[in-house]
Amino acid sequence: MPERKKLIIEVRANEYAMRARNPHVPWSAEEIGQDAAECRAAGASIVHFHARGPAGEPAFGLESYRAPIRAIRARCDMLVYPTLGAFERPLSAQERVAHIVELARQGEAPDIAPMDMGSTNADRFDAASGWFTTEDRTYINSHATLRHFAHALGEAGVKPQLVCWNLPMLRSATAFLRAGLIAQPAWIYLGLSAASLAHHPPTLRGLMALVDFLPDDVRCEWTVALTGANLLPLAATAVALGGHVSIGVGDHDYAELGSPRNAELVRRVVEMARNCGREPATPDEARAMLGMPARNTVHSTKDLA
Amino acid sequence: MPERKKLIIEVRANEYAMRARNPHVPWSAEEIGQDAAECRAAGASIVHFHARGPAGEPAFGLESYRAPIRAIRARCDMLVYPTLGAFERPLSAQERVAHIVELARQGEAPDIAPMDMGSTNADRFDAASGWFTTEDRTYINSHATLRHFAHALGEAGVKPQLVCWNLPMLRSATAFLRAGLIAQPAWIYLGLSAASLAHHPPTLRGLMALVDFLPDDVRCEWTVALTGANLLPLAATAVALGGHVSIGVGDHDYAELGSPRNAELVRRVVEMARNCGREPATPDEARAMLGMPARNTVHSTKDLA
Repeated sequence: MPERKKLIIEVRANEYAMRARNPHVPWSAEEIGQDAAECRAAGASIVHFHARGPAGEPAFGLESYRAPIRAIRARCDMLVYPTLGAFERPLSAQERVAHIVELARQGEAPDIAPMDMGSTNADRFDAASGWFTTEDRTYINSHATLRHFAHALGEAGVKPQLVCWNLPMLRSATAFLRAGLIAQPAWIYLGLSAASLAHHPPTLRGLMALVDFLPDDVRCEWTVALTGANLLPLAATAVALGGHVSIGVGDHDYAELGSPRNAELVRRVVEMARNCGREPATPDEARAMLGMPARNTVHSTKDLA
Repeated sequence: MPERKKLIIEVRANEYAMRARNPHVPWSAEEIGQDAAECRAAGASIVHFHARGPAGEPAFGLESYRAPIRAIRARCDMLVYPTLGAFERPLSAQERVAHIVELARQGEAPDIAPMDMGSTNADRFDAASGWFTTEDRTYINSHATLRHFAHALGEAGVKPQLVCWNLPMLRSATAFLRAGLIAQPAWIYLGLSAASLAHHPPTLRGLMALVDFLPDDVRCEWTVALTGANLLPLAATAVALGGHVSIGVGDHDYAELGSPRNAELVRRVVEMARNCGREPATPDEARAMLGMPARNTVHSTKDLA
């Protein structure tokens, strides 16, 4: 029996989650680094994180991102995956990606950065009340902005994750790939949510209404994530279909599982994967599967010349 | 055998289509009125139109809409369905719906008006070149704007069509219905496109990735439309599933069918429907199916008090 494809486990370490229902959300650089090392030992290969201030508030800018990147790399070989400028603060495309570009110029490029592949209303939906908690949040990523991100990340030697919450975003991602603006194999994020109607619903049908539209004329690896609810039941489907898994206490408190640390979630995904004959990918294996250069190669020859 | 549900045929008369490949796109009030009368005779019950200037340019404002509404009503009993303010011109929610509100105040309310149920990138995608013809068009309909539309149209006695190009828009429409902000049965538009990646693709799978998510806890009638390609193959599926059909030379030139007039498209849909045992609904039957008051009732008792 041929070996089945390794499973990439991407940890969604913290997003902008607070600690009311799970005290294990890492905020500081040290906490993020420690959390990453635990997750690496448990079988994860990528750590996605948002910079956070001392009280958990969103933090931005070069130094806010440099510190956790260094804290992770001091402890383990996980692929490092920060985020771009937040949509609460209207910024130009250049400003939103500036910290990534500058880190690359200084030889500290992260490995992966997100491209949220479209525009949408982004009000949080509160299922209990049946209405949105805000009514005027629109998240704008024009195709011009996305083309800038694709170019800037390519120049910086940073792998984009193509973040798709819905079919229009996946269709735009496909257009970018077919136009050659993003290198293959692509790393595609299929996002479900119980708290955002901009995403597909967290059901098998919601997931398949994305998976069914993955292009078959471009090479890609895809992963599933879920905000606001337990991903594990749908992660099993992704594992079975040859997809990957993006999970963490940033997306959901997992109070129903005892509010675990990220590494505990990774361990559960590894168990599930082994039931399906899939071993977790090491960070080096994940790099190879995603077409990324091996470690210790220069990230951006142009900027370091 | 019980009678099958009548089929509502909605004519998408002109949108902003020019006449390069089909000279039968109605522009003037007289042309729109004449086209509507032909379509009524062929079996359609709703006419959706955009006001157009003498050279086919988009036209806006009260009088631009009053003239075609009168031209239609002078000739037939079709349900009259104009549009709101266009997204090329940034306008407030109040401004976008002002002509509808004012027409209602003057006793000339249209029967239906659209609510485009979300925000999205809206660049036209050119399949031949494999890229977008613009890169910075974002179409913003925040939930606050949509709540204003729902209220204003309700006050004006105008039935909203809930326009859904993708699953987030359908999820927002469902939230509005469940919150009681829109009357049931809802009139839901499921839009496919070969020219916009903001829509679902014009395939059976693309259609079903919307139909599968129609809520079963609210009453609704749904219709399918397709911009940039021939709707008839997918219209057959909608007819078979109990949906309705929105078709016209505004959405596609139908050059492959000899660049017909709208009424010819309606005739073809009627033939197809009869093959499935469904008769076209008259305008009065469409009103009843959509929970709208019978003709000649006052549209807005509040404003006319």
